[in-house]
Amino acid sequence: MPRFALKVEYHGAPFAGWQRQRDQPSVQGAIEAALARLEPGPHTIAAAGRTDAGVHGLGQVAHCDLVNDWAPFRLMEALNHHLKPQPVAIVDCTQVDDEWHARFSAVERRYLFRLLMRRPPATHQAGLVWQVPQQLDLAAMQVGAAYLVGHHDFTTFRSSICQSASPVKTLDAIEICQMETPGGPELWFRLRARSFLHNQVRSIVGTLERVGRGAWAPDDVRRALKACDRAACGPVCPPEGLYLHSVGYPKDPFTA
Amino acid sequence: MPRFALKVEYHGAPFAGWQRQRDQPSVQGAIEAALARLEPGPHTIAAAGRTDAGVHGLGQVAHCDLVNDWAPFRLMEALNHHLKPQPVAIVDCTQVDDEWHARFSAVERRYLFRLLMRRPPATHQAGLVWQVPQQLDLAAMQVGAAYLVGHHDFTTFRSSICQSASPVKTLDAIEICQMETPGGPELWFRLRARSFLHNQVRSIVGTLERVGRGAWAPDDVRRALKACDRAACGPVCPPEGLYLHSVGYPKDPFTA
Repeated sequence: MPRFALKVEYHGAPFAGWQRQRDQPSVQGAIEAALARLEPGPHTIAAAGRTDAGVHGLGQVAHCDLVNDWAPFRLMEALNHHLKPQPVAIVDCTQVDDEWHARFSAVERRYLFRLLMRRPPATHQAGLVWQVPQQLDLAAMQVGAAYLVGHHDFTTFRSSICQSASPVKTLDAIEICQMETPGGPELWFRLRARSFLHNQVRSIVGTLERVGRGAWAPDDVRRALKACDRAACGPVCPPEGLYLHSVGYPKDPFTA
Repeated sequence: MPRFALKVEYHGAPFAGWQRQRDQPSVQGAIEAALARLEPGPHTIAAAGRTDAGVHGLGQVAHCDLVNDWAPFRLMEALNHHLKPQPVAIVDCTQVDDEWHARFSAVERRYLFRLLMRRPPATHQAGLVWQVPQQLDLAAMQVGAAYLVGHHDFTTFRSSICQSASPVKTLDAIEICQMETPGGPELWFRLRARSFLHNQVRSIVGTLERVGRGAWAPDDVRRALKACDRAACGPVCPPEGLYLHSVGYPKDPFTA
């Protein structure tokens, strides 16, 4: 059975998350239903990251096994046809080896978080950003973020229901920059790691927002990390600003 | 009665356009209803540009006359409160002289048109861009656009129901640039003029798209303009990529 890698973009709002649920819409379920229109199922696809309800995908990666030897472009077109009108799109598709696995072959996950700083309610960007009503201190947030980069016990920044075997992870980078958009100034947070804990990005961004508005000193981030205590975390920020941006593999299957 | 200038942002999708309609939702109607929550109406507001159904506002400008001497920030906050959850936001507010008029005092209108070039259906940007499935030739479009800048009879690029007294207008600028966005490459068209004819921007962008995909030579734009014939126009492109970006006044009331 040929195996195909799919690069998937989706709007998180209508879905209970990536993972298939018995009684709620999911991104995985939408794609598996589209696959069943092409070849009899059931289909089970695997993905690099199981995003939560409301979280968006820009470059999520999944793989599927099919019976027919589809031309990748034709497979992508057929899936997009059957996915409509749901806000899920296959943006790239390629055939991969049988041993290649969207989740287990991945060596890096990259997340983007968009935070809109303005007081009037967002119109065009509603649901695509987390909105806060005031300007934040970017430099202070960058200082606070730097404490989190590296190999640490991230218990403070981990959901109490996280199923990861260990809270110790290596966060390779947090970059924060300000983007001027037609809707106002946004902060874009870019985080890179081999893997993340459940709610780790939203816990980090929620904590850094406290620093940005002066409620916490940058050094309080270091103290919260050292505490290794979920209670020391700032508020977990909402999902609508979060995007699984892309996934890294030893050799990118989509440019091979 | 004090007069207030309002800068208005809105998502065009749920509205039959700017202008109040008896039996369909409109942006004007939404703002007038919010005003009636603050002071007994009826209220009638005037705007710099009457955008069509589906067209967005980023910096639309309107004015209203009220009885009470509102602090502008309080007025903006109260209106935004009553406008929720509709995708309309007052993003700036200031008191102006009685002679100042949002429409008649305006000396420049600026439009932005966003065109997304990619084959898979848009997810996050759906409704915010016009999507075409192929790459377009930006340089050819820029050559074609240059023929339209200046003082011309724009009969070719004018809706047959346009109510303007004359088809002769001065188009001050068309700038087209490519923007790399997380959803793919977009072309951003920026047009400036004292005033525009009905459907002029969408007629121009629809025509230039033909040039971009090679169906027309850039010089065909010049010929279409010279024809002064609506039938010589390319297809009018859809409204969802169009934004009334901002309005120019001899003295900007919002920075006064």
